[in-house]
This record gives sequence, structure tokens and C-alpha cells, in this order.
Amino acid sequence: MARHDWIIVGAGFTGAVLAERIASELGQRVLVIDRRQHVAGNAHDQLDAAGILVHTYGPHIFHTNSPKVWAYLSRFTEWRPYFHRVLGMIEGQLVPIPFNLNALYALFPPGLAARLEDRLTDRYAYGARVPILQLRQSTDADLKMLAQYVYQQVFEGYTKKQWGLAPDELDASVTGRVPVLVSRDDRYFQDTYQAMPREGYTRLFERMLDHPNIEVQLGVEFADLPSAPDARVVFTGAIDEFYRYQFGPLEYRSLRFVFETHEVEHYQPVGTVNFPTNFDFTRTTEQKYLTGQRSPRTTTITEYPEAHRPGENEAYYPVPREVNQTLYQRYLALSSDDADRLFFAGRLADYKYYNMDQAVARALQLFEQRIATLPRS
Amino acid sequence: MARHDWIIVGAGFTGAVLAERIASELGQRVLVIDRRQHVAGNAHDQLDAAGILVHTYGPHIFHTNSPKVWAYLSRFTEWRPYFHRVLGMIEGQLVPIPFNLNALYALFPPGLAARLEDRLTDRYAYGARVPILQLRQSTDADLKMLAQYVYQQVFEGYTKKQWGLAPDELDASVTGRVPVLVSRDDRYFQDTYQAMPREGYTRLFERMLDHPNIEVQLGVEFADLPSAPDARVVFTGAIDEFYRYQFGPLEYRSLRFVFETHEVEHYQPVGTVNFPTNFDFTRTTEQKYLTGQRSPRTTTITEYPEAHRPGENEAYYPVPREVNQTLYQRYLALSSDDADRLFFAGRLADYKYYNMDQAVARALQLFEQRIATLPRS
Repeated sequence: MARHDWIIVGAGFTGAVLAERIASELGQRVLVIDRRQHVAGNAHDQLDAAGILVHTYGPHIFHTNSPKVWAYLSRFTEWRPYFHRVLGMIEGQLVPIPFNLNALYALFPPGLAARLEDRLTDRYAYGARVPILQLRQSTDADLKMLAQYVYQQVFEGYTKKQWGLAPDELDASVTGRVPVLVSRDDRYFQDTYQAMPREGYTRLFERMLDHPNIEVQLGVEFADLPSAPDARVVFTGAIDEFYRYQFGPLEYRSLRFVFETHEVEHYQPVGTVNFPTNFDFTRTTEQKYLTGQRSPRTTTITEYPEAHRPGENEAYYPVPREVNQTLYQRYLALSSDDADRLFFAGRLADYKYYNMDQAVARALQLFEQRIATLPRS
Repeated sequence: MARHDWIIVGAGFTGAVLAERIASELGQRVLVIDRRQHVAGNAHDQLDAAGILVHTYGPHIFHTNSPKVWAYLSRFTEWRPYFHRVLGMIEGQLVPIPFNLNALYALFPPGLAARLEDRLTDRYAYGARVPILQLRQSTDADLKMLAQYVYQQVFEGYTKKQWGLAPDELDASVTGRVPVLVSRDDRYFQDTYQAMPREGYTRLFERMLDHPNIEVQLGVEFADLPSAPDARVVFTGAIDEFYRYQFGPLEYRSLRFVFETHEVEHYQPVGTVNFPTNFDFTRTTEQKYLTGQRSPRTTTITEYPEAHRPGENEAYYPVPREVNQTLYQRYLALSSDDADRLFFAGRLADYKYYNMDQAVARALQLFEQRIATLPRS
């Protein structure tokens, strides 16, 4: 095995971007390992038994406001423009999420809806995203009622399912943010760039990692590698696992995905349907809307949130509670002695929820600010 | 025949749940008998001559707020989410039942509808279920009119057909409860879990009863069993029949079902259409909405309420009158000497209307509190 300058643990967005940058820009040799049998991390996609392209670890929809991230990824994929739409099942009707003026008219009787529209457009800029925390503090009785309604119908039950916690057990940064959108824009994202990789995420990763300086080994644990004392390391896995859970495990939320194929062209009217107040699952996503694939059948993914059990299921979401941040800081402090030999980056290593574009931006920044400037080892 | 620890009379929800619990949790041997030639009690379903899955004893729609009941039944079936909708034929129009703000706008002229909307949303919390008894006591003339209208158009005629009695002959607990819903939620239920067993109820029961400790004998009367003095008994049939009607029969309401197959994809716009003021039947249910089955034809069930004639038709609904409760208490008192050898449970044995989830909850509770704690016989 050739000597590697770098070992990158994890072939998700963070690891793949750093491998590509180091290989292409610094001309150094990189070994990328992943304990899974595939690249692309949680963005991995593949054809299922029915021939439908599905996202192995739940729906991944790309969106970004960053021209830099967009330009970078565009080197490795063409794109299919896609505006994601989410409808929530509220009082038996499918209405736009985030809650907007269309939802107002779908759910409330005409008189009340018109009054609420007046109150909202009087008080807030058209197009504003008003957090319900702010609406609740309004002195207007109608707006207070609206805030309470959105809290109960959209937020409360969904939050309980998603986190297994009551809203008041979570950081206020999470609970206060749910918006009412003062417009009729029913897209889930308002980012400048909203698109899906035309041949899928896995193909994008294959292109990123296709470089003579990059070697990829799959099904390999970091702990099982022969020691390579000269190589620098980027670790994109869980920081608590890296340090053998010595302060105890960091808390994550996991998901169980149920994939179902239906013998119909479409199963639901839009990409994702949320169930804020019904059932134990949070949402069902129909993959064909995301990928644009045509087929007489269709596959859905339904998400059941569950507690994370290390070694048994995947760690998806850092749980936004003060106590977890404190624990993470203790782990992070352990790494400071190795500051230019060992780097932690990524959703699991930073214990921070990143969208895909944020993971790419974080990796690009780490490369530019800390890795490209290192003395050659 | 092997010796059984338990004889369970009736293979409906109550009997099947208790059989499964006793067999799985206590490891005891259970004989389940039913006088009918099938399991699943009144929840039984089967394919009709047209290949449509129909509910033999009238439409059964599963809904519950109990995570415990939901989790328990989910061991034996997958589910198809289904929100039941009922439209009532009122003044020639199909409007949501329970009566809600959509019904207001469908039935009344725009000015009056808007005024009623204002009165209701001023006076009651949005989303409230206001019993018409309460509306009738309002000092507002419009709301009084609305209460009277709903009473006559939705409640009075339906009640006469359903019970064969005028509203004032029934307990006020029944007549006072009919609500006006201050929202546009047009689902018949608001429960957290609303779904149908994906492969039908009969398949669910077959899975529950498929246990090496359970023997099922169909077409067998309790009275015809050889005596088994060591076995404990759960009787889920009618308590008055068990005690040979010695104080006279308990009063039930029965139904006659008319099944019709139509050579169209859909017969009506939603699962159930009620006819509160017309005809002798109460409602027509189109099975395909409930089950999600696809077919170029469709089967409906129309329900004609009728008096119960023991031995001739089925006892479906305990009649909610004081006199019947008194009679039931006399029968119940007869069973107290056998308190840990003989158990009565279920709609007929408790002389109490249970929805399916309530029957399951009652059986689980009986098992946990009284059966699991018994000394081994």
C-alpha cells in the first residue's frame, strides 16, 4: 500500500470534499475509508427492487444560497432544477408547510381568513417569515389565536415525535423559529439554488473521488487500519466514538425508514407530506418527485423517529439541548493538542446539524483556512 | 382434546386479545370458541362476489388516541392511513358531518353564513366542539336558530331511525352531545391514529390467534362444550343470554345490511353518506374508500336499523336508557361469586358500546389487572 499523506475517515460530503481538495489542490495522497460498503455517506442513493432511485438514508434535497458551494459541486454533476414542496395534513386537509397565506384560506372560514390576512399584511412586510414566538406576543387576539393554532397543529406534535421531547425541553432556538410565511410561496425552501444531481448523489461522489491521488477503501473501520504515524487524519465520524465514549455518549436522534413501493404512478400530490398530529411517523416522501424519474410505480419513504442506540441504528440529529453542547465541548477539548495532525469536521464530528450545502461549505472553509496553509509534513 | 387452562367464548376483539395475551404472556393453553364460522367477530371482512373486500357486519373504521392499543395491534398488522369522512344529505346537499363551518357556507346564504361564522368564532375557541344543547341555551338569536336547525336536520330524524325512539326517550348524554365543530376539519374522527389494517381485519385476527397455545373451534356453542371444570372462562357474548334471560332480555338495536355492487369506479364522493331526514336507512358506506382497494366496480353497504330479535338478528347497540342499565346490573350481580373463574368482557358482556380500540383497551386492562395476577389454577 502506498504511503498516504492523509487518512480521511468517512466518505460523506465532508470527507469527499476534503479528499478532492487535498488531492487536486495540494497534490497529496489521500486514503478515504468508510465503515459502510459505499461512498456518499447519508446522501447515498441506489435503485431499489422496483427500479426506483431511492435515498438509502432518507430524502436528501439539495438547496443553497452559496454560489461558491454551487459552483464547486457543479464540477461533478449536472443538475435538475427542483423546488421541493411539503404539505402538512392538518385537520384532514393538505396545506403548505411552512404555514402561509394559502394555508390560512384552506383552513379557516372566509371571514376569519380575510381578517388574519389583513392583520398579517398590516403588521409585517409582505414576504416576511414571522416566527410564531413573535406572533404569540402580539396584542392582537386574532394573531395570538393564529400563533396558538400553528403551534398546536404544525409544531407541537411534530416536535414531540421528531425529538421524543416536549417543546419546552428543547432549546428555545428550535421552538421559537417555526414561521408563518406572509406570502403564498408554497416552496419549502427559498434558496437561490434548488436542484438535484441529475444522475444522483452517489454518481456525484464517485466523480469527486475519481482522482489518481485518492484511494477509497470501503467496509473499513478506522480502528482496524495499520498505524500510519506520518499521515494526518480528518475524522468525520462521531467525536464521542473517536474518544471511546469516555465522558458518555452524545445524544442523537435516529430514524427508522420504511420503504414501500406502490403500483401507481404517484402516491401523493407533492414530494413530502407531513403528519404533525397523527401517527408515530413524521412524514412520507415520494422519491420520484425529487428525482424526476418516470415509472408506472413509485416508492415512498416514511420516517419514524426513534432514540439513537449506538451500534444498532444511525446517529442522525444532534439533540439541541444545552447539556449536549456542554458534553460536546469536553470532547472537543481533547483534540486540541493534535491541532495540525488531526481534524474533526462534519455533522457527527462537529456535533452540529448541517444541511448538505453547509457540510460542503464547512469542508471548503476548513481546507482553505487550515489545511492548505499547513507546512508539508 | 388437550386440557385447556382457559375457554374464551367469542373470537372478536375482546376474545382474541385475551387469548393472545394469556397464550403469549402466561404460557397457558387457551381454547377459543365462536358460534360463527369465522374469527374476527363483527370486524370480520371478506371478498364479495365482485372481488371487493367488504365488512360482513357493517363498516369498521379503526381510530384511537391510545399509543398502547396502536402499538399492540401493530404487532399483527401493517396499516393504511385513512381519514374517514362523512357527508350528510341535508336539504339536497352533501355537507360535512359533524356539522362544521364548511356546512354553514354550503347550506346558508353568504350573509347569514358569515354572521354565524362571526358569532361562533367570537364566542368559542377556534376548533371547539360546541354541543347543540349549549348552543340552544345561547341568548343570541342566530346561534339559537343554528342549534335548532342542526337539531332538526342532522340529529332528530337520524336518531329516530337509529334507535326507533324519539330523542326525549333516550338518555340526555346521547342527545346533548351532538356538536357543531368551530373549524373546517371535515374528518369524522380527530384521533391521533386513524388507519385500516392493510390486509384486512380477518388477517389481523388470524395473526393474533396463530399461537401454539391457542386452539380455535368455530361453529361451536358454549352450551355444547363438554364440561371442563378446571378451565377458567372468559365470556364475551351477551350476559343476559349467558344467564338464560332469567330477568328478561337486555334491549339492543340491530341493523339490516344491504350490500350492492355497482359497475362504476366510485359510487359516492366519500366513505359514508348519511341520510338524516330521508328514507328508512341511516347511511351508505362505500367500502373501497375504507380499504383503498382499486377496482372498476365498487360495493356499498346500506344500513337499516331495526329492533333486535334474539336468535334472528344480531345484537349491535346497547340502547342507552336508564331501564337497561338497571337490568344489566342485575345480571352482572349474578357473576360475582365466580370472580376469579369466570370473566365477562366485551360489548355484549359489558352491555356497553365499545369502539374497536376501546374493546382492545378493555381486554388489555382486564388481562393486566385481573388475569395476569391470578394464582395458577
